[in-house]
Amino acid sequence: LASVVRCGTIDNDFFPNARKAYGSMKTLDVNGGTGHSRILVGERLANLPQYLPPGRTVIVTDTIVRKLYETQFPEVDMVTVGVGETAKTLASAQDIYGALIDLEADRTTFIVGIGGGIVCDITGFVASTYLRGVRFGFVATTLLAQVDASVGGKNGVNFRGFKNMVGVFNQPEFVICDLEMLRTLPRSERHSGFAEIIKHAAIGDSALFDFMERNLHGADTLDASVIERFVSDSVTLKADIVSRDEKEAGERRKLNFGHTLGHAIERTTGVSHGEAVAAGMVFAADLSVSRGLLDRAEADRLSALIAAYGLPVSIPADPTALMAALRRDKKRAGEGIHFVLLEGLGKAVVLEIPVAELELAISERK
Amino acid sequence: LASVVRCGTIDNDFFPNARKAYGSMKTLDVNGGTGHSRILVGERLANLPQYLPPGRTVIVTDTIVRKLYETQFPEVDMVTVGVGETAKTLASAQDIYGALIDLEADRTTFIVGIGGGIVCDITGFVASTYLRGVRFGFVATTLLAQVDASVGGKNGVNFRGFKNMVGVFNQPEFVICDLEMLRTLPRSERHSGFAEIIKHAAIGDSALFDFMERNLHGADTLDASVIERFVSDSVTLKADIVSRDEKEAGERRKLNFGHTLGHAIERTTGVSHGEAVAAGMVFAADLSVSRGLLDRAEADRLSALIAAYGLPVSIPADPTALMAALRRDKKRAGEGIHFVLLEGLGKAVVLEIPVAELELAISERK
Repeated sequence: LASVVRCGTIDNDFFPNARKAYGSMKTLDVNGGTGHSRILVGERLANLPQYLPPGRTVIVTDTIVRKLYETQFPEVDMVTVGVGETAKTLASAQDIYGALIDLEADRTTFIVGIGGGIVCDITGFVASTYLRGVRFGFVATTLLAQVDASVGGKNGVNFRGFKNMVGVFNQPEFVICDLEMLRTLPRSERHSGFAEIIKHAAIGDSALFDFMERNLHGADTLDASVIERFVSDSVTLKADIVSRDEKEAGERRKLNFGHTLGHAIERTTGVSHGEAVAAGMVFAADLSVSRGLLDRAEADRLSALIAAYGLPVSIPADPTALMAALRRDKKRAGEGIHFVLLEGLGKAVVLEIPVAELELAISERK
Repeated sequence: LASVVRCGTIDNDFFPNARKAYGSMKTLDVNGGTGHSRILVGERLANLPQYLPPGRTVIVTDTIVRKLYETQFPEVDMVTVGVGETAKTLASAQDIYGALIDLEADRTTFIVGIGGGIVCDITGFVASTYLRGVRFGFVATTLLAQVDASVGGKNGVNFRGFKNMVGVFNQPEFVICDLEMLRTLPRSERHSGFAEIIKHAAIGDSALFDFMERNLHGADTLDASVIERFVSDSVTLKADIVSRDEKEAGERRKLNFGHTLGHAIERTTGVSHGEAVAAGMVFAADLSVSRGLLDRAEADRLSALIAAYGLPVSIPADPTALMAALRRDKKRAGEGIHFVLLEGLGKAVVLEIPVAELELAISERK
C-alpha cells in the first residue's frame, strides 16, 4: 500500500511543466494512504511555477516570509497570515477560507503554502477542507519545516491552547526545500531544525549521526552539501517510517523521540520546541541507560552532539507540572505512557512505561 | 478500488458485538477510497450498542432528537447541538471540539451522530478532524438523512452562508436507518426525503419510479415495507454511484439532478430544500424535453409523481437573482454549467450547458 521511491531527476509525467534536470537537487517520492508527495531538496523558490498545474493558484504565506521573499513569488493571488504559534488557530483558518471565497477560489484552485511549519500546517488543513479538499503543495522555508513538517501529511491547528487538536492526514503534492532560504533564518530557528535532525539520526541513521559529529562547522555556515545531506537524509528516514505507518498506529511513534517529555517541558516552561525536544532526548537516553537498553557512552555521545549544535541538554522544570502535562498528553493509552527509548545510536524502540517509573525518573532529573 | 457488496445478515467479523440476525433488516456495504461503510436499513436505535467498538463512545445529537429519543440512547457521554441549518457552522464544530476536550476524548474514542443530515454532517466533520480523525458512525433519524446524507462520505459545515464550504470526504463506519423514528418526523421533512427518493428513481431506477407511483398510500402512512424499499433502493443507487466516483469527478454529478437550479431557488426564495429540488427537477426535465432528450410524456409523469408526493412542480423566483446564484455555484467550471438532464425516466446524463441557454430557459420558466 505504501512505498518510498527515490529518484534523482524530475519525472516529466509527474510534473509536466518541469522540463529541466537539476544537477544538485535530490527528489524523494512518498506514497502514503492519503496520496503521493514529492520532496524536492535543493530546489529553488524561483522555480515554483514549474510545479504548478495549469489554472488558478493562490499562495498562503506569513508576514515575515512575504517581506523577505515576495519579489521571488510568482504573480498570483496571495493570502497572508500572522507569525507564530498563536496564529495556528481556527481563526486564522477562517480568515483564509474567507479570503479564498473573496477570491472566488473553486475546486480547481491549487494552493501553495510558503513558510515554516505553522504556515504549512494551516495551509494543509485549509486546503484539505476548503470545498472538501483542493490540491496543494508547499515551499518549506525553515530547517524545521524542511526536515519535519514537510513529510508525513500531518496538518492542522491548535485549539484552546492544545497543539494540533484539529486537523487531518493529507499529503501535499510537492514540497520545495529551498536551502538558500535558510540563510535568513534566525539562529534559534536553525537550532530547532538541528534538534529534529539529531532526533532522526538517533532513532534511525547512525551514519547521519557520525556525519553530524564531523560536520559541525559546515552546519554552522550552512554549507550547501552539508545541509543538503541533513535535509535529504532526514526526509528519507521520516518518509520511510511514515510510508509504513501513516496514521501513527505503531512505528511512527519513534518520531516522538524526545517529544513526549519535550512537549511537557515546552508547555511548562515556555522554551522553544527545539530546546525542549533536545532536553527531552537527553532524558529519554538517560532512561534508556537506566533500563539497561543503552550504553552510558552512547548516551553521552548524544548529549555531546546536542550541546555541540547549540542546544540545551537539560531544562529545569517542576516535576509535578511536568507529570500533569504528560498525563494530558493525547498519546496516552491505559496506565502507561508510550515512550521512545534507544537501544543504540540509530536504533529506537517504543515501550509503554509505567507512570510511576516516569514519575521517579522525572523527579530525579537534573 | 471501490465496490458495493450487498448482504442480508450481519457479518460477525465486521461487527463482532452484533450476534443476532435481523429478519427484516437490509444491510449494504459501501467501499470507498476513504473507507468502508455499512448501511443498516430497518435496524433500530435500541440496537446501537451492538455496533459500537469496545471502549469509549460519545454521542452527538440535537435538542429535538434528544428530547424525543434520549431514553433509548445508550448510557454514554453526549454533546447536544442546536437545530437547523444555522447550527451547521464552524462555531458548532468548535463547541463539539471543546466538549470532547472537556470529556477527555482521545484517539480511541468512537463518536456517534444521532440525527438528521445536519447532525450527521457536523458529526462527520468533527470526527474526521478531532485529533486528525477518530472513528465514527451515524443513526440517521430523518428520511432525507437516511436516503441521502447517510451515503457518500460527504461531511462539513456552512461558512459565511455558503453551504458546505468547509468539510472533508470520509465514510462513517455504519449508518443505522431506523424507519420507526420517521413516525415523529414533521410532514414537511418527510416530503424533503420523498424529493430525494424521486430524484434517485428519476436518474437511475425506473422500477423504483413505478413502485413510487403505485405505493402513494403506503408512503403516506409510512408502511414499513414501502419505506424500506424507498430507503434501501435509494441507498443502493447512491452507493453504486458514489463507489464509482467518490470525489465527484464525473458520474456522481448525476446526484445533482434538480439541485443546480434547486440550490439557487432555495437561496433566492428561502423555501425548503425538498421543495426547491422538486421544482429544480421539473425545470431540468423541461430542459431535457427542449433539447430533444426526453419525451414530453415522461417529463409529465415526473411532474405528476412530484405533485402526488406533496411537492411543488414550480416555485416563482426572480430570473436575474436565480442566474446570479447559479453563477456563484461552486460546481461551475469554465463558460458552461454542468447540468443533469434526463434521457428517460431512470436515465440521467450530465452536460455542460451554455450560460446563455440556461438564462433563456430560466427566463421562460413558469
